[in-house]
Parts: sequence; structure tokens; C-alpha cells
Amino acid sequence: MKTVTVALGARSYPIHIGDNLLAECAPLLADTLPRQVLIVSNATVAPLYLERARAALAALDRRIDSLIIQDGERYKTLDTFAEIITYLLQKKHDRRCALLALGGGVVGDLTGFAAACYQRGVDYAQLPTTLLAQVDSAVGGKTAVNHALGKNMIGAFHQPRAVIADTAVLATLPEREFRAGLAEVIKYGCIRDAAFFAWLEKNMAPLKRREPAALAYAVERSCVNKAEVVAADEKESGARALLNLGHTFGHAIETALGYRDWLHGEAVAAGICMAADLSARRGMLAADGYERIVALLRAAELPLAPPPRVTAERLREGMAVDKKIRDGALRLVLLRAPGRAALSDDFTEEELMRTLRAFAGGARPQEAAGARSQKAAGARKAASDA
Amino acid sequence: MKTVTVALGARSYPIHIGDNLLAECAPLLADTLPRQVLIVSNATVAPLYLERARAALAALDRRIDSLIIQDGERYKTLDTFAEIITYLLQKKHDRRCALLALGGGVVGDLTGFAAACYQRGVDYAQLPTTLLAQVDSAVGGKTAVNHALGKNMIGAFHQPRAVIADTAVLATLPEREFRAGLAEVIKYGCIRDAAFFAWLEKNMAPLKRREPAALAYAVERSCVNKAEVVAADEKESGARALLNLGHTFGHAIETALGYRDWLHGEAVAAGICMAADLSARRGMLAADGYERIVALLRAAELPLAPPPRVTAERLREGMAVDKKIRDGALRLVLLRAPGRAALSDDFTEEELMRTLRAFAGGARPQEAAGARSQKAAGARKAASDA
Repeated sequence: MKTVTVALGARSYPIHIGDNLLAECAPLLADTLPRQVLIVSNATVAPLYLERARAALAALDRRIDSLIIQDGERYKTLDTFAEIITYLLQKKHDRRCALLALGGGVVGDLTGFAAACYQRGVDYAQLPTTLLAQVDSAVGGKTAVNHALGKNMIGAFHQPRAVIADTAVLATLPEREFRAGLAEVIKYGCIRDAAFFAWLEKNMAPLKRREPAALAYAVERSCVNKAEVVAADEKESGARALLNLGHTFGHAIETALGYRDWLHGEAVAAGICMAADLSARRGMLAADGYERIVALLRAAELPLAPPPRVTAERLREGMAVDKKIRDGALRLVLLRAPGRAALSDDFTEEELMRTLRAFAGGARPQEAAGARSQKAAGARKAASDA
Repeated sequence: MKTVTVALGARSYPIHIGDNLLAECAPLLADTLPRQVLIVSNATVAPLYLERARAALAALDRRIDSLIIQDGERYKTLDTFAEIITYLLQKKHDRRCALLALGGGVVGDLTGFAAACYQRGVDYAQLPTTLLAQVDSAVGGKTAVNHALGKNMIGAFHQPRAVIADTAVLATLPEREFRAGLAEVIKYGCIRDAAFFAWLEKNMAPLKRREPAALAYAVERSCVNKAEVVAADEKESGARALLNLGHTFGHAIETALGYRDWLHGEAVAAGICMAADLSARRGMLAADGYERIVALLRAAELPLAPPPRVTAERLREGMAVDKKIRDGALRLVLLRAPGRAALSDDFTEEELMRTLRAFAGGARPQEAAGARSQKAAGARKAASDA
């Protein structure tokens, strides 16, 4: 077992990463669980792992209730949030209860937000069962539900007391879910960890085969990166925004699709391509950098563009509501190289629309964009030389 | 104008108290308001004061939207909260917007909770227009909505950036609303300010006539008391719980009535009587202390018991869900004397039920309880002497 700490003073907490931790979680949670505990899981995960978690926790002599919610991003709503609150009240959980999120990002975000608001705040811990949740959403205290007009628009910063990432449970993860998680893993390489990016380029094959050593390393490196960023900027007043590489584009895709059909990580993968494209158009990102990023996402078998039915205009509309907008100006995470990102509003509306049009409505821009950006950089250079 | 500071480090903020401050609020808010502002008010207050607030803020060159919600505690729900969020998204307010709550406790609690959750937290300020909101709910950062199974069960601690209490607007407050506010004023005297309690005994007549000097003093003393308690214990891990004198009983009354018919302050008044009765039964509170408290609430023309249709059993059920419950044990704010309160679980279920039965179903216990408690104290003394 490896343990990564998220250093936030009195609210610091451990991320435990290892094989079969779910069955062995009792000693890891003994100090944090109060008398009353509610496990929240979903209809897909519960049949696989709920009894394992309950059996493990039985040793602790706590009152353990469980609630099973529906599976899928489209249930990450205020209604499902209310369902959790109602259950807590019906079962008379008091202010010293704790919630355990057993599932993926949707279960984690919903459970965390319910914990943030129930009686103005109770404790919770994360037992993430998807790759995406283990490397990203379970860590860092961002909780939220979606609104029809925008993703994650209703939420709170509320840190968990502990995160337990059992890499063994990833064995049952459907292929598509697993690949969606790889998008967030690749994201860390892109924004701040060039060595990890290079490791991913070399090890995508064993990682896709879910070889335990590769998996454990990828989860650990991702968590180390996330923990460092969160410790430096918990409430996203600065550097934490870089973790949203591909997310403003990705959220617009998800909103356009009504949070159906595509997984969050898939939308993020297409979003990273679009952010890389805009970076290349701006001359920030060289052609070979662009190509390496697209190649790595392709190797992970992730989508490189939105589904054809989504138009550029619909995407632009979805981007108009984004938490990184400041005083009306859209800011995006752009890339200087694989391993170096920057938050920027230094692009024109026209440049942004060109990227959106190049990717929307079934366009397949990824093959040519590198070449295009080289030409654009050449043209800019010529202009500045003149 | 008087200014009381709530001292919370980086989150400290001023409470400005004075005559006609609404018309003069622009300089008081100039530093705290960003480019986009949403004023939330209700159907009763907006026709009276919304234009005054908008006109005052026009000097600041901000984009000011406004949303008018329905008036009444029964609208303090997740649905109305969602209405505010939807409006913010429709009007494309970004993460640096601010909300202004112009109204009573319901508007303040809803607006504060919306500010706590919109895009994981934006700023807000309170412009309370009821006595209850000026002396209590607008100060201290407790925000919440009700659930059918319990009052204020969904919420957050989220401090405002400023509170502006314009005592002039209290002139238009309906008599019943004004008296409901007096319940919270009397509460401060009861729990921690014997001198203020004595001042209230002497000055209830001018206060009920809403004489400006009496009003300003009562609001200021209440805010000073609240600010001190909140600064010492922001998240209610200790002393802040004393501010809930009468509230556990009161919330049970409100829940039993479906948040209809009675005002929050009226329920608190009856709740203070019940807390005083239980304190007297326990021998904590002497008969003359009990009588002074009941007499002061009677002088304020507040109800001294729940409405006859509420049974003791229904009240007990409503008390089973309370934020002060710890590991299953109900804790209540009890009184040692006017000006001295204590959080206590040192009472039996039987004693609690005796108080509930003495007050519920149309009983009128307040006349006799003092005498009863004297007898009880005498009996207890005799027993311990034996």
C-alpha cells in the first residue's frame, strides 16, 4: 500500500492506494468513522462491492446504512442529492454521522455534496471504484451536482477525511469506463509532469491491459500530482484551474449531450485535443507537442473530437457558462508543451470559433492540425519579421 | 450609524446599523460588490424597498439583476433555492458575481445558501428588512433551506461580506412580524446578557412603539451579542449552540405546522417558555427567574405555548431530528437564570415529556409552572437532605 497525503493543515487527509484495500478498509477508517455511517453506492457498483465493504466495516461496530442510487452522470442532480438527504433524515442520522461514497465520480460528487450540506456539514470518505474517481474526482474536495444549464454549477468545496483507492476493483470496470479514466491520467502528464507523460507513452499497452504494477504507478503519480496542486490552491484561485485542461470544452460537450451517451472522461479527451488545437493555432504549442498529445489519447482509444451531431455554436453556448469565466472573459487552460500548461484568455473569439468549427459537426481535425499550426506559426513569424 | 464587527480573521465583516442606511448603502458596499450583482427579494418586500436599493446602487455602475421569490417560511425549500440558481445561470452570472439578500430571514437563508453553492461559492451581503433578520438570521453565516422532515437540515456555513441593518425599514413591518423579532432579541438577554434582559424589562413599551432610539439600541446589543458568540465558535462546536435557546422546541412546532401559520419567532417564544419550564423542573432555574422570562415574553405579546392542535407526541417526534443531537442523545439549551444558559442533556425522557404535555394540546402551563418548580426544588432538597 502507498499513502499520499493531501496537505491542508487541520483538514489534511490520506489517499491510500493498493490492491484489495476495500476488504481491508476497517483499520484505515477506524479513527474517522463515527457511530452512524451511510454508504452511498449505485446500482452497478453495489452488487459487486457493497457487501465486501459492509463485511469489512462490520469489525468496527458501527451502525451502517446504505443507499443505492441510479448509475450515470444524468442522475448527478439536485433530485438525487435530495434523495440522499431524505434518507439521512428518515434514518435519523445526526450531525456526527459520516457518509462513505462507494462508486465512481458521480457517486463521489453527490455524496460529497450531500455531506457538505447535511445539517450544514458532516464528514465523509471516498472509496472510489473507477479509474477516473481514483485519479481525480475522489481527491481534492470538489463536490457538485449538475444543472440543465451547466455542469457542476451547484456544489461546495468539502474535503473528505480519507480516500481509499483499491486498484483490485478496477478489474471489473467496463473497458469504456477504464479508458475514460485514462483521459484524466493523461491530463496530469499534459499539464505538469513531462516525465509521467513520457512514461505513459511507453507504458500505454500494459496500462490498458490493467497490469497491476502499471495501474498502481499510474494511480499513484496521478494522486501525487493532484495532491500537490490541491494543497497549493484548495479553492482554485490560481494553479488548481490547470487541472481543468480539456474540461471547459468537455463540459460544453456534456451539456450539449444532456449528460447522456458520453462519459465525462471521453468528453475531457476530446476537450484536451481541442485545447491543444487552440494552443497550436496560437503558436504556443509546437506541432510535435500537439502530435504527441493526440497520439497518446489515440493510443488510449479515446475520442479525439465531439460527436458529429454537436455544432460549434452549441459548444460555444455551453462554454459561456463556465466557472473560469472572470468578468465576462472566458479563460482556458492551454498547453505550451506536454507537461506545461497555462491559464489564458489570450485568444480571440475568432480563433476559438475556428477550433470549435474544426472539431464540431463531424470534422476530423486531428490528422492535419499539427501541420496547420506549423504553417500558422510560420505565417506569424513572417508577419513579426516584416 | 453604528458598526459592529464579526471578527473571523480574513472573513471578518461589518454589521452597519442605522436609520435610512438602505438609501445610503452604495459607499458601504462599493468595495465588496463585483461587476455582476443579483438582488434577491420577496413579493412583500420588493414593492417597498427594491427600487430604493437599486437606485442607491446605481451610483456604483454595476450590472444589477433582481429576482423576486414568494414570501414565507414554507418557500424556504430546495425548489426555491434551485430557482435562484437557474436565474443566475440564465443571466450568465460568473463565479465572481455577488448576491444581495433584501428581505427577512427566509430571503437571507435562501440567498446565503445559493451563494454558498453557486459555482461552489460566491460572495453575498445581507440587507435585512425584518427585526428578526437584523438581530439574528442575517448575522453569522448560517444558511439553509428546510426539508419536510426537519427545519434547516440542508445548508452551509457561509459568511456574508457585509450586513446593513436599516432600522427605518422596520417602520413598515407588520405588527406580528415585529413581535416575532422581539423573541430573538429577548433570547440574547436570556442566554448571556442579564443587563440587556433588565433593559428589555424596563423598555418593552418604547420598543414595541418602535421608538428609534430603543430600536437602535436593541438591534445593536443583539448584534454585539451575536457577533461575540459567532467569533468565538463559528461552526457551532460549542458556545454557539446557546443561540438556539427555544429553537429545538420551536423547530418541532414549525415542523408540526408544516412551516405554515406561525412565524419562526413565535415558535421560538413558545420554545423559550418550554426550555424555561424544563429548566425549572430540573431545579436549575428558580421560580422568579422563570416568571421574569415568561413575563417579558408576555409583555412582547408573544405566544407562550404551541397552538392547541399540536400534540406532545408530535413535538417529541419533531425534536428527534435536531442538529444538536449527538450520538443519539438530545441536548437542549436550558437556563440557570435570565442571562445564563447552558447546553445540557441532563434531563430524563420523562421530564421532557412532562414539559411537552404541560404545553401541548392547548394546555396553559405558564401561570403555574413557577410554583411547581419551587415545590419540585423543595422536594429535591428534602430528598438530598435525607
